Amino acid sequence: MKTTINMETAEVAKWVEWLADFGRTANDGVTRLLYDDVWQAAQSALKTKMDECGLRTYFDGVGNLFGRLPGTEEQEKAILTGSHIDTVVDGGKYDGAYGIIASLLAVHYLYQQHGLPKKTIEVVSLCEEEGSRFPLAFWGSGSITGKFNMEDSADLCDANSIPFHEAMKQAGFPPAGKSAVRDDIASFIEVHIEQGAVLEKEKQSVGIATHIVGQRRFNIKVSGESNHAGTTPMSYRKDSMHIASELIAYALNRASKVDDSLVATVGKLTVSPNVPNVIPNEVIFTLDVRHHEESTLAQYCRTIFAYFEEFCAKKDAGLEIEQWVDVKPVQMDQELIGLSDAILKDMSIPYRKMISGAGHDSQMFGTYCPTALFFVPSKNGISHSPLEYTEAEDLKNGVIVLIEMLYRMAY
Amino acid sequence: MKTTINMETAEVAKWVEWLADFGRTANDGVTRLLYDDVWQAAQSALKTKMDECGLRTYFDGVGNLFGRLPGTEEQEKAILTGSHIDTVVDGGKYDGAYGIIASLLAVHYLYQQHGLPKKTIEVVSLCEEEGSRFPLAFWGSGSITGKFNMEDSADLCDANSIPFHEAMKQAGFPPAGKSAVRDDIASFIEVHIEQGAVLEKEKQSVGIATHIVGQRRFNIKVSGESNHAGTTPMSYRKDSMHIASELIAYALNRASKVDDSLVATVGKLTVSPNVPNVIPNEVIFTLDVRHHEESTLAQYCRTIFAYFEEFCAKKDAGLEIEQWVDVKPVQMDQELIGLSDAILKDMSIPYRKMISGAGHDSQMFGTYCPTALFFVPSKNGISHSPLEYTEAEDLKNGVIVLIEMLYRMAY
Repeated sequence: MKTTINMETAEVAKWVEWLADFGRTANDGVTRLLYDDVWQAAQSALKTKMDECGLRTYFDGVGNLFGRLPGTEEQEKAILTGSHIDTVVDGGKYDGAYGIIASLLAVHYLYQQHGLPKKTIEVVSLCEEEGSRFPLAFWGSGSITGKFNMEDSADLCDANSIPFHEAMKQAGFPPAGKSAVRDDIASFIEVHIEQGAVLEKEKQSVGIATHIVGQRRFNIKVSGESNHAGTTPMSYRKDSMHIASELIAYALNRASKVDDSLVATVGKLTVSPNVPNVIPNEVIFTLDVRHHEESTLAQYCRTIFAYFEEFCAKKDAGLEIEQWVDVKPVQMDQELIGLSDAILKDMSIPYRKMISGAGHDSQMFGTYCPTALFFVPSKNGISHSPLEYTEAEDLKNGVIVLIEMLYRMAY
Repeated sequence: MKTTINMETAEVAKWVEWLADFGRTANDGVTRLLYDDVWQAAQSALKTKMDECGLRTYFDGVGNLFGRLPGTEEQEKAILTGSHIDTVVDGGKYDGAYGIIASLLAVHYLYQQHGLPKKTIEVVSLCEEEGSRFPLAFWGSGSITGKFNMEDSADLCDANSIPFHEAMKQAGFPPAGKSAVRDDIASFIEVHIEQGAVLEKEKQSVGIATHIVGQRRFNIKVSGESNHAGTTPMSYRKDSMHIASELIAYALNRASKVDDSLVATVGKLTVSPNVPNVIPNEVIFTLDVRHHEESTLAQYCRTIFAYFEEFCAKKDAGLEIEQWVDVKPVQMDQELIGLSDAILKDMSIPYRKMISGAGHDSQMFGTYCPTALFFVPSKNGISHSPLEYTEAEDLKNGVIVLIEMLYRMAY
């Protein structure tokens, strides 16, 4: 196939707006939560669109929507492409939704231009990724890849105390229904907004993910002694705020020194008693650490926690470190990275390889089948906000790359 | 007078407990707020006690209670001794109350042993010091010394929206009544618990205050940029938590290096948006700085704020520094310090000179008349808490020193 693909620049943006109508908020953001009314309406409308495009549509047992274009030569395994339909509360129009639109438009284009592929392609609108209604993320991709089953969601309730399985049933997916697990997926291709500012700052149109980072999150509690701010000399103090400030500065400074890819964030901090004239007896803060190599994550955590221990021991202060997230890094498929590389060079689209610092459905698929993940730029790196925005040109570029990729893989 | 004073060790503690019955809480703490029912009952009971001791009692216009022992030679000016009757909510039994009891017992003892003094002595139960019902501290001592007048309290309301002047009137002190200002006070002598742990740690029975510190308090706002904790490389960040941790560590480390007397506290800190996986765009923290020399306070603040400015400029982050407390340091009277020194040496009571890191009524009197302030130890330095405690022996020591002091000044 020639690398010139005819598509109006405004085309993709128009379809993104169409999907944003399902759950659009007063701020021009989107709230579309797993199994709720607008979620049902969006999946139903997408099914109609897929039908109109000539795809064979069906839902699995958990509400993932598929649109199948059967291969003429290989039907057993499918190339799966898509992203997730759910959003965070008052989130953006692009996160997840863009990937579904991109896949649908790409497959529609290919079918119109070239007819049926040799290998089966399926577009997927994954039911859930964000964990924003129930405390369970990656429900869609996790169910397909067998990483989650009904037991994992059995005890969960949303903020209104509606049980997960009740919400499933109300949306037309009884938990006792058919399984969502698949063993017939050849590969997974996802297009997504970057949700960061690297492409924009470096003036690149497309990012090829080489890895999705591993994440570790911790709650760190520093226990000192509350005392009067006026009558306690500095040398008598066991000031948990003072100690915490030293630990935070150390951890974040150290992160910059490891390599360009390691990121560490102290996003949440609480002080007790939190009164201006009382020395705090307790500071609790979170530490979120991400890198694409498990060994680097482990080494960084060992180094800073050794420092934390030593520092608190020297100050005779208490230290508790509790880990509450441990997600392993996932590598994207080398062969698909090579193919992406070749395509982007051929198309003369400015691009870079990069590491995904955010989690995506591709991380569920990455350990299950060959997986590729592309990014398009996010304006100012903003995401999970009504201000989330990607230029129409960039939206189109992502679709064009996906068309070429699917063409080379399936035709 | 001989420096042996006969007094049962348990005597003073017994009277402290008696006064604690007015407002005693379930935790064995005390809540006695300006002009409330238990405050009225306590002042009334103290008046009766003073009457029984042979003192001439009267209230001034704001509710300060005086018990006068007239001098045989000098009646125009009075040596005033006492402390404040009000407490914080669920505070301790000793803060303020002990100073009133100590003064009453000391004057009673002197009158019984030696009859009328040459110079007039007055015991005072000051109506208010804590600022815990209305947002105005030192109302009692400030009214006597002319630092406050009715206008200063006119617009204040308590947490139940009761106006200050309404509360005064209900307690029997109509705001339009007689003035509280005095011009006949020769000196002020206060005994108080330390509210810190210096005397206890250094095994001293009595502290002679040489100064009451000046205080400056600030709100410091660091403004950065909120971004995704995963997709924003360290070098792209404007992380207000990272910056704030560096500023706090610098300010508190610097405080230790100035001299032993400077204290700095970051007691309160708030983070926005305070979410584990979002880089904070704003951190606001308080800084409380105290020292007994205005020049040292000024120099310290200049140094750290210059560092803050430079650091934030380098990080391209916003910085706002707002000062909301500026209390000048006050020196206690040199002659009275010399007298105290001699007395404690004569009595062989272990003591030290020290700086008061907390505010006391003595700081209102200190710029108005020669003033002396003594401390007795606070167990574990705890104050403003039901756990506030001073050993009976220490309580007695404070009274004995006060007896000797008043004897040498007035007899």
